[in-house]
Amino acid sequence: MARPRSDSEAVQDRLVEIACAIIEERGGQALTMQELAARAGMSTANLYRFFDSKGALLDALAEYWFRPKVAIMEDVIASELPARRKMYEFFARRFAHVRQSWQADPATLAMYIELAAEHIDHVRSYYDLADHYLGMVIGEAMSEGYFAGLEVDETIVLIKQMVMPYCTLATVIEQMPRLSEDKLARIVDAVFDGLSAQDRGARGGGLRAA
Amino acid sequence: MARPRSDSEAVQDRLVEIACAIIEERGGQALTMQELAARAGMSTANLYRFFDSKGALLDALAEYWFRPKVAIMEDVIASELPARRKMYEFFARRFAHVRQSWQADPATLAMYIELAAEHIDHVRSYYDLADHYLGMVIGEAMSEGYFAGLEVDETIVLIKQMVMPYCTLATVIEQMPRLSEDKLARIVDAVFDGLSAQDRGARGGGLRAA
Repeated sequence: MARPRSDSEAVQDRLVEIACAIIEERGGQALTMQELAARAGMSTANLYRFFDSKGALLDALAEYWFRPKVAIMEDVIASELPARRKMYEFFARRFAHVRQSWQADPATLAMYIELAAEHIDHVRSYYDLADHYLGMVIGEAMSEGYFAGLEVDETIVLIKQMVMPYCTLATVIEQMPRLSEDKLARIVDAVFDGLSAQDRGARGGGLRAA
Repeated sequence: MARPRSDSEAVQDRLVEIACAIIEERGGQALTMQELAARAGMSTANLYRFFDSKGALLDALAEYWFRPKVAIMEDVIASELPARRKMYEFFARRFAHVRQSWQADPATLAMYIELAAEHIDHVRSYYDLADHYLGMVIGEAMSEGYFAGLEVDETIVLIKQMVMPYCTLATVIEQMPRLSEDKLARIVDAVFDGLSAQDRGARGGGLRAA
């Protein structure tokens, strides 16, 4: 993905970077169209040529923030790996990316995660996209014979629950000291070797005669 | 467990119930020794005969709040179930207990969970106790042949990560609409049938010759 694609997008990216600087220095509340225009050395009227509302600016901020995460997912999906390895990479590379941000500046990362939670309407599409890509990996796994008897949608929910500390942003930073690629690999192996719709006794149904 | 065991403990329980009422009506900040004494119709000096400090009161509050959860764990541990069923019950019964509190009054439950996070020194021993009991179930599972190659302590960490939405209180209430005993059973089955120290390819090590 060669980005930005046009001069206008280059300016928008530059404005988003300034918006990030405002947020990182003074918090999300400090980000107004007036403040951004002033910091960018342009009139507010000119700024509105690039973002016709605060909502459009927030959309651009979300796109900028999720861009590397989307690129990671697209790379993994496009790879030729078997489904099990693909699913590990799908979670592990995003986890490593978030850990890097966390190591660089934990407070700033926490602020962006909080900001995303406050503006869920501007970021929900990225969570939906992640589910969509996870569904694709699950589909490939199913064609390799895994997750017998489960539907794709319920498998998405189950796997997200089983790897939650590695993929839910707020949980990642809270659990960071206990997380590792090594543990994630064991969990993904357990997902592939253990997850199916078959009742195998955890709930006791397997002990009752049909 | 027949509780309370003495008249003094009965009074302490009654005082803790009044403390809970203060918290539920006006928040954790409103709970002072003076306020509790006034609400209980006793002098502050008399109250200090039952709790010699605010910390002792918080310890008693934590003991009161975790008591049914500890009882659930002790019942499961004492049961004759096979390890797989035991582990399911270990998580499922506590999950059902928390869900019941959530259904009765989600805001109050959220407040107690926040209070527990603020006073972690008064509740940590209960989390340690839960780990200890989980370790016992894991030990039984290992003697049945599960979790080959893993140590008990690392298995505790891995399993807690895999069932996090069902056992970390803050996550339980956040994820509640997506949680069910049915999904938990599939996850516990996956833990038993899939979790081991053997590299089976998620991380790719299995593809490299030794």
